[in-house]
Amino acid sequence: QTLKGAPEGTELNAKGWQQEAAYRLLNNNLDPEVGEAPEDLVVYGGSGRAARSWDAYDAISEELLDLEDDETLLVQSGKPVGRFQTHEHAPRVLIANSNLVGKWDGWEHFHELEDEGLMMYGQMTAGSWAYIGTQGIIQGTYETLAECANQHFDETLKGTITVTAGLGGMGGAQPLAVTMNGGVCIAADVDEARIERRIETGYCQEKVDSIDEALQRAEEAAEAGESYSVGIHMNAAELFEELLDREFIPDIVTDQTSAHDPIEGYYPSGYTLEEAEKLREEDREQYRKESLKTMERHVDGILEMQERGAIAFEYGNNIRGEVDSYRDEDDLWPLTGTSSDERDPFDFPGFVPAYVRPMFCRGQGPFRWLALSGDKADIHRTDKAVRELFPEKDRLIRWIELAQEQVEFQGLPARVCWLGYETNNDDRTERAQFALRINELVREGEISAPIVVTRDHLDAGSVASPNRETEAMRDGSDAVADWPILNALVNCSAGADIVSVHDGGGVGIGNSLHTNNHVVLDGSDEAAETAKRVFTTDPGMGIVRHADAGYEDALDEAERSDVHIPMQED
Amino acid sequence: QTLKGAPEGTELNAKGWQQEAAYRLLNNNLDPEVGEAPEDLVVYGGSGRAARSWDAYDAISEELLDLEDDETLLVQSGKPVGRFQTHEHAPRVLIANSNLVGKWDGWEHFHELEDEGLMMYGQMTAGSWAYIGTQGIIQGTYETLAECANQHFDETLKGTITVTAGLGGMGGAQPLAVTMNGGVCIAADVDEARIERRIETGYCQEKVDSIDEALQRAEEAAEAGESYSVGIHMNAAELFEELLDREFIPDIVTDQTSAHDPIEGYYPSGYTLEEAEKLREEDREQYRKESLKTMERHVDGILEMQERGAIAFEYGNNIRGEVDSYRDEDDLWPLTGTSSDERDPFDFPGFVPAYVRPMFCRGQGPFRWLALSGDKADIHRTDKAVRELFPEKDRLIRWIELAQEQVEFQGLPARVCWLGYETNNDDRTERAQFALRINELVREGEISAPIVVTRDHLDAGSVASPNRETEAMRDGSDAVADWPILNALVNCSAGADIVSVHDGGGVGIGNSLHTNNHVVLDGSDEAAETAKRVFTTDPGMGIVRHADAGYEDALDEAERSDVHIPMQED
Ligand SMILES: NC(=O)c1ccc[n+]([C@@H]2O[C@H](COP(=O)([O-])OP(=O)(O)OC[C@H]3O[C@@H](n4cnc5c(N)ncnc54)[C@H](O)[C@@H]3O)[C@@H](O)[C@H]2O)c1
Ligand SMILES: NC(=O)c1ccc[n+]([C@@H]2O[C@H](COP(=O)([O-])OP(=O)(O)OC[C@H]3O[C@@H](n4cnc5c(N)ncnc54)[C@H](O)[C@@H]3O)[C@@H](O)[C@H]2O)c1
Repeated sequence: QTLKGAPEGTELNAKGWQQEAAYRLLNNNLDPEVGEAPEDLVVYGGSGRAARSWDAYDAISEELLDLEDDETLLVQSGKPVGRFQTHEHAPRVLIANSNLVGKWDGWEHFHELEDEGLMMYGQMTAGSWAYIGTQGIIQGTYETLAECANQHFDETLKGTITVTAGLGGMGGAQPLAVTMNGGVCIAADVDEARIERRIETGYCQEKVDSIDEALQRAEEAAEAGESYSVGIHMNAAELFEELLDREFIPDIVTDQTSAHDPIEGYYPSGYTLEEAEKLREEDREQYRKESLKTMERHVDGILEMQERGAIAFEYGNNIRGEVDSYRDEDDLWPLTGTSSDERDPFDFPGFVPAYVRPMFCRGQGPFRWLALSGDKADIHRTDKAVRELFPEKDRLIRWIELAQEQVEFQGLPARVCWLGYETNNDDRTERAQFALRINELVREGEISAPIVVTRDHLDAGSVASPNRETEAMRDGSDAVADWPILNALVNCSAGADIVSVHDGGGVGIGNSLHTNNHVVLDGSDEAAETAKRVFTTDPGMGIVRHADAGYEDALDEAERSDVHIPMQED
Repeated sequence: QTLKGAPEGTELNAKGWQQEAAYRLLNNNLDPEVGEAPEDLVVYGGSGRAARSWDAYDAISEELLDLEDDETLLVQSGKPVGRFQTHEHAPRVLIANSNLVGKWDGWEHFHELEDEGLMMYGQMTAGSWAYIGTQGIIQGTYETLAECANQHFDETLKGTITVTAGLGGMGGAQPLAVTMNGGVCIAADVDEARIERRIETGYCQEKVDSIDEALQRAEEAAEAGESYSVGIHMNAAELFEELLDREFIPDIVTDQTSAHDPIEGYYPSGYTLEEAEKLREEDREQYRKESLKTMERHVDGILEMQERGAIAFEYGNNIRGEVDSYRDEDDLWPLTGTSSDERDPFDFPGFVPAYVRPMFCRGQGPFRWLALSGDKADIHRTDKAVRELFPEKDRLIRWIELAQEQVEFQGLPARVCWLGYETNNDDRTERAQFALRINELVREGEISAPIVVTRDHLDAGSVASPNRETEAMRDGSDAVADWPILNALVNCSAGADIVSVHDGGGVGIGNSLHTNNHVVLDGSDEAAETAKRVFTTDPGMGIVRHADAGYEDALDEAERSDVHIPMQED
């Protein structure tokens, strides 16, 4: 398979731009510039795949190129399984990835089915063809850290040191997000190639080999109030222990190793990368145990740093949940004989309740779009549109400017920012206002080919994930999965062009259910109508879901932006 | 709350027939003639509810009556939570009931949330407003027993005795289905009122108080080749033990107690109904243990009868799964000290792999429709249409005739029969042919008001349920839940008027995921188009799902009826 990334330009390969968008996005996910291991169909986040097999990939491509404007293709865990006549206002592609019936809904049964060729892990935007490289996550990381700075420091990370780990597809955004907020970042990864990749793409400034060197440079930069980032080639658990031995306590500690998947995503301490991979092939169960042992030390390090004054939060990789779950396995716990069995891994918070939920309550979430033309100028025109539409939004404008300067495009040029429901006294939401404006620019030819608008599965009203997005909901409804299902159904009803429902993204099989959708802005009236509907229902679900849970911010936004919520006093 | 059932007649209360249908169906589910305990909002199957609370019921009603033709109402576990603008080809109501994230997906967490007022158990057609009383299940039971007669007896149950239990909303169909097939049925229920109700409605012929009397009458009738049914007021486990003591082995043994819910659905032995209910209120955990103890004896009786020559099958209440699950609870197992711990409860088959799957492979399933007018003549006209459209289908015609004679309507007049995908060289499926014909009859005024067509959640392509509908799938994909999700999404895309997704119907929370949909045939062109689409996508999912699992019947039907399946040789 030769991987060339997405076709570009203004000519159609498929029978319409909706189908073309799906086709280009699938290939964009597998662009060697975008995906982490496209040769294995892996896009990011451990083993998150774009298609189940190369045969399935070929068949999806063939179907998409042949699909009519009133047909819908069905994809089941990365394999095309059906194609039916629907209608022009309906989605062109429906995707369900990695979903299992509750009682069987865990890695063990999933891996059995995967081995049989029956399933695929879709992560969030891997299997739904909406990944846009590290850039996709950087704005979320930027927002989270900015909010952290607001709450704990002086609205900036200037003068602070953040220690983290995991420089993969998403975790690689951390050093850049820290420096964008003015701070200093030390980040560990066991895979040297990942560090090098982040340096090449401008996400991380340099790599050093010794902890002492890293510490020295970091402290110098922090003292000088300069931003700085450094990658260090080692295991996270080991780094945290070494730092504690040196009595070094960072200002902020977190990590984004792929701990949600102890076998495919996380590396145990005491092995080189090659040794670990050999062990994984030969004895998966032993690998899992070694991984969990390391995770326990890793969490222990974070908790210890927190106790000694660091701001700690879990960055959505379920490392707390993994450690917690395996406490019940008698032969595994206590793993290391440290003090850990007295500590609850959930003693440090997740980033959502800590920093993100207030935004979700207002229907805000990581909105993103790609230029199907492949032309960077198209995205620069959209950047301009954001500035024109929302001149009063300082944090947003600062982000757009920083992104233009510092974020390199990977694959199809793309942009991400957080937009919400807020109608600003218009009858259109913020997201709809933006999409309608872009659709006009496409129609007028100011943008050279259609723009496809999509988002992360992590969004205001699209996910149930008790260890991450819906951790510690006010009413205790963390695990209620009716919400993402309604989100997918209502976006389908509103006419989104692709709708997907996945199990287990971010936090591992059985731990979450979530959805996303795509709308192709091809300049037509039809696209404008669809955009107006979908960018109302989709962020609207965020308001409805948080209002139902009793959040004041959501109730307030519902009132301000006139969201009809049954059984609420009007 | 005064419960009057559905409004009838040809005048609208809502703003369109789609909304009106939803409104009438909700109320029909709660018609005292239809639902089992409508005063508690319980429709059937243990605690399967139509709405979460009376407040939620009122709010749903209010919303439905006010809903525009391009709006969509969202119902989350029986409570209306949002309402959005969509478009005319989109569903008017979207329902997600009882869904939980995998790791939390079981009765225990469900009950916690239910107690907090956050969730509702929707069963299958209870929470999706498609229950039509015992009649709904009778045809499935008729088909299953007819298939059993084909496989094991002489194409009829004449001269055979079936022993079963559970005369609730669905189980109550058993005696009638047996007699319709020419056989004799002895059925136990601990709730005398249920037996009496089945006798009043003509589903069971009489009630006796002693086992000996029941046996004598049953054996006389069987010898004479006459059909006969008798209800006996006792616990199933006790009945089976008593029969074995008497060395009586029936020809067929099964049961439909609500074993899927050991607390709300099943009654333990050794307690009167009142004593059991008191225990349930005072000590739910003790109740659960007592229930499981009885279930183990109950399953033991079935296995023993099977060993001694009876044809045994589980009738979809998960009694095997319940007994099996609790084997792992050390303090519960072995429960009774019988030989059971040597026996595997799964040593007797489920009814689906035994009798139903070959039909599913061809997209056949329990298709049903209701006359919104309330006028019986409308259903009789549809019966005639079935006979006119499918004169060559003997079993179907026999069913329609028997149903007209023997099945009393409850609530809105309704009919059920199994129709499939088969196109008979038409470009329309069997289900679509029927719906389009009915739509014409409505348009022409031969039917007085719109007909709403819906189905059970148990259908060819709509359910993942490893202990029931997808038990022992050929490729091992029993637990893959991508399929029902795609089913809901594609029916939504095809424009069904109501679409629902439920967890745990029939077999209990965490054990299944399933969907249904409604299409309102109001005589319009629009309805005809929707019907043609939905009644292709919906049974089409059955073919696609079973073809993917490698079933010859499905591959054959795909070829015969021209279903496009990617990656299959054409
Ligand atoms: N918004 C969010 O909630 C959010 C955002 C980004 C990532 N995440 C989560 O963060 C994790 C990382 O995502 P990704 O896409 O970057 O994954 P990835 O698999 O591409 O990268 C993971 C990286 O961690 C490294 N690693 C694994 N174990 C390690 C260890 N013990 N010590 C040091 N390095 C180790 C790997 O070498 C790899 O480079 C995932 O669990 C993902 O779900 C969550
Ligand atoms: N197609 C199918 O797969 C299918 C069809 C019908 C029913 N079911 C299943 O069958 C079960 C019954 O459904 P329902 O709607 O009739 O439920 P229901 O709750 O209305 O009725 C259950 C009946 O069983 C009786 N019962 C409970 N425990 C008993 C015991 N130990 N001995 C004797 N009687 C006992 C109750 O008194 C009640 O009348 C459910 O589990 C349902 O999911 C499956």
